[in-house]
Amino acid sequence: MAGTDSSRRDANGPDAGPVFVLVRPQLGENIGTAARAMAKFGLAEMRIVAPRDGWPSDRARSAASGADRVVDAAALYDSTEDAVADLTLVLATTARPRGMVKPVETPASATRAMAAARAGGGRAGVLFGPERPGLSNDEVALADAILSVPVNPAFASLNLAQAVLLVGYEWHLAGDATPAESLEVGGQPPATQDEVEAMLAHLVGELDAADYFRADHMRPTIVQNLRALLRRARPTEQEVRSLHGVVSALALGRQSRRRTRG
Amino acid sequence: MAGTDSSRRDANGPDAGPVFVLVRPQLGENIGTAARAMAKFGLAEMRIVAPRDGWPSDRARSAASGADRVVDAAALYDSTEDAVADLTLVLATTARPRGMVKPVETPASATRAMAAARAGGGRAGVLFGPERPGLSNDEVALADAILSVPVNPAFASLNLAQAVLLVGYEWHLAGDATPAESLEVGGQPPATQDEVEAMLAHLVGELDAADYFRADHMRPTIVQNLRALLRRARPTEQEVRSLHGVVSALALGRQSRRRTRG
Repeated sequence: MAGTDSSRRDANGPDAGPVFVLVRPQLGENIGTAARAMAKFGLAEMRIVAPRDGWPSDRARSAASGADRVVDAAALYDSTEDAVADLTLVLATTARPRGMVKPVETPASATRAMAAARAGGGRAGVLFGPERPGLSNDEVALADAILSVPVNPAFASLNLAQAVLLVGYEWHLAGDATPAESLEVGGQPPATQDEVEAMLAHLVGELDAADYFRADHMRPTIVQNLRALLRRARPTEQEVRSLHGVVSALALGRQSRRRTRG
Repeated sequence: MAGTDSSRRDANGPDAGPVFVLVRPQLGENIGTAARAMAKFGLAEMRIVAPRDGWPSDRARSAASGADRVVDAAALYDSTEDAVADLTLVLATTARPRGMVKPVETPASATRAMAAARAGGGRAGVLFGPERPGLSNDEVALADAILSVPVNPAFASLNLAQAVLLVGYEWHLAGDATPAESLEVGGQPPATQDEVEAMLAHLVGELDAADYFRADHMRPTIVQNLRALLRRARPTEQEVRSLHGVVSALALGRQSRRRTRG
């Protein structure tokens, strides 16, 4: 039962994510791809139950490419029972209904349950079955709940690496501080309200000078619309400076054309 | 520009998901795997810009396995500009910051933006770059926003099929009616409150008969705890019937033991 000690140590660490247990995986490549998917989402602890082609596996290591560490640290078990013995919450990934009375979780709700288990001092793990047949009913019965990824019913089955990727993704999201939407500004500070308004005033001043607002009663509406457009673009300081330049250039062009005409 | 007409038709349909645009994909296998990932999440419209190894591709068809329809219906374009010409919202998937002033969306927030575009009568699309280099800066510049999947910064890059899978997953989730958590009961109806209470009364009655509650003041607490345990298990009718049987069998065993002793 290699790895049990290290998993106990991890369980006490503040960042211990769920353990991913690959049950009777068939191809070393898939173990490696699963390890890489885990690493992408900051998950480190893999357990492997009775891999068909033996262990260690060169194919697993090479498919893991950047994530050799996950493969090298993977703990090997003879049985699924042993692999989950120290866990307090076990989820079994399966697409097929099993006729068992078990809660069925989505990746997102499973993530909440696993985070709650961790907060309560426990340790969660997710069982992933072998490539074709999936987990046996006896293995699913070991779990507290079923984890099922909602997919188009006509294409119900995810492969091993896809299932690992999606469960890992949801786990990572839950602990991720990335704002839902942000603005990439290439290091440029956003313009302040004042700067945008000054730019707008400059523009409107030049439009006035150009007799753009023929119908006076439309002026407030047009200015409002220009303001909305500018705000929606959330310009940077630099962009506001550029817009000043653009307005000045256009205004100057008009004046010089007038001068030419006059 | 094959496929433009059919995409217009789709755009008017109520279920038109976003268009996935594969820009200069290198390997046919990856186009097929991407198609399969799309099909898993009910997405049907793929566009392909200048695939390196030509089109149609046998390798794409065979990697798509069940999802040939997505591959066969894929529209081929010479340029990314053409491929996005009829779209009203374009997102560019990229892991690297590009020094451009663009909103950066997560898959979830991008999904909301795409659903809003659809609700407003528009059509959204997502650009996926070629396997190694990803989208060029000019291609990213065509997009309204960047779509970036939050990953462990040490393993920043997702491959093409993984990116397609995660964006498709989020799209599917948003329109999916799967409850966050449900109970798989194998077709068995859940027990009613009355049935659970009757079962509890049966159990407590037998415990009373067995002089289990030695300290009377503990009885309410113990009953409460048993009730909480039973409720938490959310038993089915069938399970409640089984529990009645279990309690009766245990009680009968006790009586016959007594009879034997007496």
